[in-house]
Amino acid sequence: MPNLLLCLLLAAMMAPAQNLMPWPARIAHRDGRLELGTFRVALAGFRDTTLERAAARLVERLARRTGVPFPVGVAADASEATLVIECPQAGAAESYTLDVTPRQARIEAGAPAGALHGMETFLQLVEPGPGGFSIPAVRIEDSPRFGWRGLLIDASRHWMPAEVIKRNLDGMAAVKLNVLHWHLSDDQGFRVESKRYPRLQEMGSDGNYYTQAEVREIVAYARDRGIRVVPEFDMPGHTSAWFPGYPELAAFPGPYRIERGWGVIDACMDPTREEVYTFLDGFIGEMSELFPGEYFHIGGDEVNGKQWDASERIRAFKREHGMKSNDDLQAWFNQRLEKIVSSHGKKMVGWDEVAHPDLPKNVLVQSWRGQKALAELARQGYEGLLSFGYYLDLAQPASFHYANDPLGGPGASLSPAEQTRILGGEACLWAELVTPENVDGRIWPRLAAIAERLWSPVEVTDLSSMYRRMAVLSRNLDWLGLTHNRAYPTMLARIAGGHDPEPLRLLAGILEPVKNYTRHRGRAYRQDTPLNRLVDAVAPESLEARAFGEDAGAMLAGKPGIEKSVVARLRAWRDNDARLRAVLQDSFLGADVLPLSADVATLAAAGLDAIAYLASGKPAPAAWISQQKAVLKRAAAPRAELLIMIVPAIGSLVDRAAKPGGLRLEPTGAAPPATTPGRRRPPEGLRRH
Amino acid sequence: MPNLLLCLLLAAMMAPAQNLMPWPARIAHRDGRLELGTFRVALAGFRDTTLERAAARLVERLARRTGVPFPVGVAADASEATLVIECPQAGAAESYTLDVTPRQARIEAGAPAGALHGMETFLQLVEPGPGGFSIPAVRIEDSPRFGWRGLLIDASRHWMPAEVIKRNLDGMAAVKLNVLHWHLSDDQGFRVESKRYPRLQEMGSDGNYYTQAEVREIVAYARDRGIRVVPEFDMPGHTSAWFPGYPELAAFPGPYRIERGWGVIDACMDPTREEVYTFLDGFIGEMSELFPGEYFHIGGDEVNGKQWDASERIRAFKREHGMKSNDDLQAWFNQRLEKIVSSHGKKMVGWDEVAHPDLPKNVLVQSWRGQKALAELARQGYEGLLSFGYYLDLAQPASFHYANDPLGGPGASLSPAEQTRILGGEACLWAELVTPENVDGRIWPRLAAIAERLWSPVEVTDLSSMYRRMAVLSRNLDWLGLTHNRAYPTMLARIAGGHDPEPLRLLAGILEPVKNYTRHRGRAYRQDTPLNRLVDAVAPESLEARAFGEDAGAMLAGKPGIEKSVVARLRAWRDNDARLRAVLQDSFLGADVLPLSADVATLAAAGLDAIAYLASGKPAPAAWISQQKAVLKRAAAPRAELLIMIVPAIGSLVDRAAKPGGLRLEPTGAAPPATTPGRRRPPEGLRRH
Repeated sequence: MPNLLLCLLLAAMMAPAQNLMPWPARIAHRDGRLELGTFRVALAGFRDTTLERAAARLVERLARRTGVPFPVGVAADASEATLVIECPQAGAAESYTLDVTPRQARIEAGAPAGALHGMETFLQLVEPGPGGFSIPAVRIEDSPRFGWRGLLIDASRHWMPAEVIKRNLDGMAAVKLNVLHWHLSDDQGFRVESKRYPRLQEMGSDGNYYTQAEVREIVAYARDRGIRVVPEFDMPGHTSAWFPGYPELAAFPGPYRIERGWGVIDACMDPTREEVYTFLDGFIGEMSELFPGEYFHIGGDEVNGKQWDASERIRAFKREHGMKSNDDLQAWFNQRLEKIVSSHGKKMVGWDEVAHPDLPKNVLVQSWRGQKALAELARQGYEGLLSFGYYLDLAQPASFHYANDPLGGPGASLSPAEQTRILGGEACLWAELVTPENVDGRIWPRLAAIAERLWSPVEVTDLSSMYRRMAVLSRNLDWLGLTHNRAYPTMLARIAGGHDPEPLRLLAGILEPVKNYTRHRGRAYRQDTPLNRLVDAVAPESLEARAFGEDAGAMLAGKPGIEKSVVARLRAWRDNDARLRAVLQDSFLGADVLPLSADVATLAAAGLDAIAYLASGKPAPAAWISQQKAVLKRAAAPRAELLIMIVPAIGSLVDRAAKPGGLRLEPTGAAPPATTPGRRRPPEGLRRH
Repeated sequence: MPNLLLCLLLAAMMAPAQNLMPWPARIAHRDGRLELGTFRVALAGFRDTTLERAAARLVERLARRTGVPFPVGVAADASEATLVIECPQAGAAESYTLDVTPRQARIEAGAPAGALHGMETFLQLVEPGPGGFSIPAVRIEDSPRFGWRGLLIDASRHWMPAEVIKRNLDGMAAVKLNVLHWHLSDDQGFRVESKRYPRLQEMGSDGNYYTQAEVREIVAYARDRGIRVVPEFDMPGHTSAWFPGYPELAAFPGPYRIERGWGVIDACMDPTREEVYTFLDGFIGEMSELFPGEYFHIGGDEVNGKQWDASERIRAFKREHGMKSNDDLQAWFNQRLEKIVSSHGKKMVGWDEVAHPDLPKNVLVQSWRGQKALAELARQGYEGLLSFGYYLDLAQPASFHYANDPLGGPGASLSPAEQTRILGGEACLWAELVTPENVDGRIWPRLAAIAERLWSPVEVTDLSSMYRRMAVLSRNLDWLGLTHNRAYPTMLARIAGGHDPEPLRLLAGILEPVKNYTRHRGRAYRQDTPLNRLVDAVAPESLEARAFGEDAGAMLAGKPGIEKSVVARLRAWRDNDARLRAVLQDSFLGADVLPLSADVATLAAAGLDAIAYLASGKPAPAAWISQQKAVLKRAAAPRAELLIMIVPAIGSLVDRAAKPGGLRLEPTGAAPPATTPGRRRPPEGLRRH
């Protein structure tokens, strides 16, 4: 990108309205602030109940955020209002302008969808200023880069009650996402009430399903927040939970049970039987009324074909129809399904696997396979969504998701026309290892980084700005009732039993779960396995470790004034092990955590020693270095499904201590550490931390 | 108390079941633990729906606490159950035994009320043990010291929605309280729907009132938890909110408005008009059906008599009836009221002021005036409750409330028969400066200390045990949805705006609000004054400052191993001011807090210097001492309605540093601080912290 544009962008991010996320398309700062001594909101032009409810909600949220009991409701007279929302007509256009002067704020949008985004931006600007709560005078012109910005929530693997969905819809609206992809059936649970086929939920859900009234309420709740709901009923595979009630749908005779383990399961629908399509026509018809949105997701992923291969009847069917593979058979199934879905007025969506030469191009394809697969689909004429790289359950850092662009890599070589077929992307929260207790912590705040990738201009890529704004947003989501911040201390307290959990928090703050599918390789998790261990409590990304790494790096780069804080953290970690041992000694939930705690103490001591060597101006002796390398290697290995995230930062301190020249640090008067190769640390009296 | 008993008691408190609160009447430990690898609860003997619901709730709570998805519901077969609850009959008897062996736990109670208490005790015993969650084998025989253990919640001054009441009922049950005293009307709001006199809520509540359906739901919710509800409708004073709808009840003609300020208001009912009693008969009749409990509280406090004195008609009435004072007139009113209340099958309760020679002795008197007044009432033949010394809104420490015994002071000299007239006590949470946001933080965890005072044997007075157990309980209340822990960080984040609130938390942790009624003397608070400042966020009692004071004292008493932690805290406070300044510099909510922050930094530096002097073995010079005394004096003064609670501990460090002899501390190799009278601190290079 042009350097000038980058400079302007960075300058804007340092200006008063610096906490916005996602970052808007265009922003210009003005002088002054709009004081919120009183607050009234008014609607101008087009009025509808969605906008009226949104405006009323805005007042409530502002009152909660500020603690000021602003009068509720919407004002009749725009001239007296603090905020005027002007919207000429109904519609789904998402662009808006927000114009704030010291006298009044004004949101103009082509349709309510844009006005809703403008209100979220307005709320993000509110700060306690010198004279009271206020927002900076600013003009924002904003519109999304991609039209489809979604979150998939898997309510099947672990049941997610309605309140989980609702509070996450509030969070999604706050970061301008507009699609809830609701994964409602899978091998481990069928989660929607069907009145036509009631054994689906009666025998497939353990009693944990959304009633139709709840579905309607959630769909309306989403619509009020500018979010459309795309239901997914995965088929023909991932269907074990359909079969206890309706075994006749399956390729193999039953009886079936709800599947309790994870992975790709053999159970699969029988695409060769007409009764299956009759059933699906009835079912999809019923669900199409319940979910009024434009799209209907049929899944279509991970059919292993074992039941099909093992069935003489199905093999015969394939032969009769000249099908060479199970892919051909699934494509045949998908063609039938597409006609059914279309007949009920919906557009079909499916995962990568549904793409097939025989499939019509009006099917929207969601790619878990990656940008290359997605680009190929676009070339073939499919519209597509990217989900590869947005799997929140794999415990990747926000920076990883942030760098993952739907038009990145192979997507960049698409023609402009092909690029328009990439509608956007969806974050995915698969729930094998997620419960209602830790679900928000698995989604937030990292989802905000994905939301920004999908909303903001492609040039918005500055990581340190993103992390700073994400931290602000994460705290502000508390006001919406999201539980990522408040469930964490209670989960730690559970592990600590009656003890003060503070030492556990100090350790947990720099740990992360192992990544990708590693957890499944180490333990045979099942649906009823308690998810109450430290790995289930810690955040997928340690922002504390990240901040420490940045500070340690800045210190080594010669930035002044950081050492004290680096040393204070190292000291606290070094001294924490003994305290934590007292907390966890009797707890089965703590036993596998203590080796990590011991390593953190050793690492911290190594970091302190390294700084002492650096301050002494003399390189650390080779024996000490090799000893620390061994410590670092051991500490880098996962244990208890957890990783110590300060390892790289300690490693760079140790590496630097090995080099001659030292580092100019604050004057201390301390003696250089003694070099005693047989000890892990220099003698006590000579360390200065 | 006998020393042996004390020793036994303390030994019991150190044993495995050490986290119970309130502490039980008798406890004996056994060998082993009952493992909760699975968990089933069964009812034996008498069954009722209250017990069944309570047992089902116990399983849910256990599942939430442990994170283990125990099967829901109540088992049919007691022999296979982990916990058996045996209860022969219905009733309100509160005693129970809990018998835990490594094979099974058993609660035996004379009535469901006792069984409910036993279940709470059971839950408090659950810990993560070496092999999984478990509870220690133990036999507990328990019963309350006082039969009336209440909490008053004032829902009038600030509206408290139903969920506030419900979650606090859960908390009350957890500490075995059995009376919710629901303060439902006052000058600032009339909070219950009357169908007979609908203008009460329509014109007296700003729309914030409990519907009758909500009242019934809350009363049932309380009953399910062994808690009776006593409604209070305060009269003839504190009645401004009745009069906008029904000015004809008032001694002066209207029109009236809901009162927005605090204090004793002149508006008062007219006791001389028959229509008033007709109205009250109708109203109390309606409310007596809505609130099925035995007691009806008519308030009766703080009648200033100004309207009565100013009314020619009322003065004439008093003359005609030979009344010498307004007290006589109020007693006349109360006698009429007592007949009405009795006629609807209720026992009348009132505050101290209702006691009068003309009043029948069947009125229960609640004393806000103190033990002396209460003892006098008992001598006169009244039954009474103590609330003096239990006002949670006055920001007193738990130790203060814990030392406040209904039979303490003058009560101790009552005869045994008179003592039985003291039924117990009630904590009070008056809501002038309390909102739904900070209400739980004003109630919890200190209410647990009052609950223990009212439940446990009189010998249970060990403060450090109480504080340790209260901290455990406070964390466990999170599982019940109480918000005292989670509202605190969001209130701090509000003040910090977009900044990281951590430096603010570090300061706030050692501050307390000013005590008693001091806040009202400094500012003209009203109902719509935002309660969003630091004083509204900080806990009424700083447990961090308390712990620091204990540790500093122990260090000075020569206890080894504490210095490092004392020094670490002092350093953190010393270094916090610059960071906090960056957070609060632009915020109107922070401006008045910064002087406290600066003083905390100075105090911490003084503490560090004092320790350095002590370590040097030489007394601190007089100039330094006098300088620190000035600092301490300034820091002890309230600012921003806040107090710095580490002042006494720093004071004792400074005092000790003035004495010769020093203190044997851990070896450090540090030089003694330089004595430079013109500087607040010794030169940097010589300090060792």
